[in-house]
Amino acid sequence: MANTYRFGPHIIPASQIFFRSKYSLGLVNLKPILPGHVLVISRRSVPRFLDLNADEVSDMFQSAQRIGKVIEKEYNSTSLTIACQDGPHAGQSVPHVHVHIIPRRLGDFGNNDDIYDEIARNTKEYLTKDSDSVDIVGIGAALAAPPEKKGVDFDERKPRSEQDMAQEATRLAELLDQHQLS
Amino acid sequence: MANTYRFGPHIIPASQIFFRSKYSLGLVNLKPILPGHVLVISRRSVPRFLDLNADEVSDMFQSAQRIGKVIEKEYNSTSLTIACQDGPHAGQSVPHVHVHIIPRRLGDFGNNDDIYDEIARNTKEYLTKDSDSVDIVGIGAALAAPPEKKGVDFDERKPRSEQDMAQEATRLAELLDQHQLS
Repeated sequence: MANTYRFGPHIIPASQIFFRSKYSLGLVNLKPILPGHVLVISRRSVPRFLDLNADEVSDMFQSAQRIGKVIEKEYNSTSLTIACQDGPHAGQSVPHVHVHIIPRRLGDFGNNDDIYDEIARNTKEYLTKDSDSVDIVGIGAALAAPPEKKGVDFDERKPRSEQDMAQEATRLAELLDQHQLS
Repeated sequence: MANTYRFGPHIIPASQIFFRSKYSLGLVNLKPILPGHVLVISRRSVPRFLDLNADEVSDMFQSAQRIGKVIEKEYNSTSLTIACQDGPHAGQSVPHVHVHIIPRRLGDFGNNDDIYDEIARNTKEYLTKDSDSVDIVGIGAALAAPPEKKGVDFDERKPRSEQDMAQEATRLAELLDQHQLS
C-alpha cells in the first residue's frame, strides 16, 4: 500500500485515506464543513469529471454511495449533500476530480443567513494548512466566489490535528470493512 | 415512448425529457438557476441515492457525464456544478433521486453576496408552476433553508413557457444524438 497519494498538487498521507477501490480513494478533511464531511477522489489525477472513463465514473459514485451509507449512520444524520465542483469556474480549486460527501440532519445550519457567514469561513482550502487556494462546496458558495477573485476573510477555524484525522480515517475504514462484510 | 414520466409526485411531459438511458432520464427546468441547468433523474422513483442499485448509480453518472459534456459546450461554459441533495435535510424537496447539472463560467454570479439573494430567489421548486415545495441546489442553499422551515421570499422569476422548455429539450436531444454518433 502506498505511503502517500496524490490529490492534484497535494501529497496526502495514507493515514488520511479511509477507503480504497479500484479507481477511487476516500479522504478525510482537515477542515470539514460539518462533521463527517469527506471526499472521494479518482486515483488517476485528472482535473475534470469529463476526463474520467466509464469505469472510473461508475467506481467513483458506487464508492460515494458506499461511503455515504456509512457516514450518514456514523454521524447520526438523515441526509447527504453530494457535490462535485467540476472545473475552476464551478469553484474547484484542486484540479483533480473530487466529490464532496457531507452528512446532513435537520437544523444543522439553522434557517437563516448565518449559513452565508459559515460558507465564507469554509471556503478556504482545508487540505493543506499552508494552502491559499480556495475550494468551495456546492453551487451557492461556488457561484459566490470564483477562485480568481478572492477577498472575503475566508477562514478563522483551526485545522484539525493529523492525529484527529488519522483516528477518523481508521474508524471510517473499520466501518466500511464491516459494511462490506455484512 | 411514454407520454409522461414520473418525478416523485410530479408528472413530467415527454416534451421536457431530452435524454433517455436504460435507468435514467434528462429533464429541462421550468426555472433554471443558470441557462442550461438540467436534471438527471432515475427512471425508478425512489427517494434516496442509497436506494439505487449499482447499475443505476453507474448509469446515472455516466449519463450526467454525457449530458454535462454537451451542455457545457452548448451554453458556452467552462465548468459544471454537479450536485445531488440526497434526502430532505440536504435540501431535497422532490423525493425522487435527481442530480443537478449546471453549466458554469467565469463571473456568472460575480464575486459578492448578490449570489445569496439569487439563491433565495431560486429555491422554490421550478418544475411545476403551482408547486409550493422547495428544492435548492448545492450545500450553501441546501444548508440555508431546510424545507421544513420556509420563510424567505423565494421566487420572483416568471416560469418559462412549455414551448421554451420543449424547444430546449429538442435541441439538447439532437446534440446528445450527435455526440453519441461522433
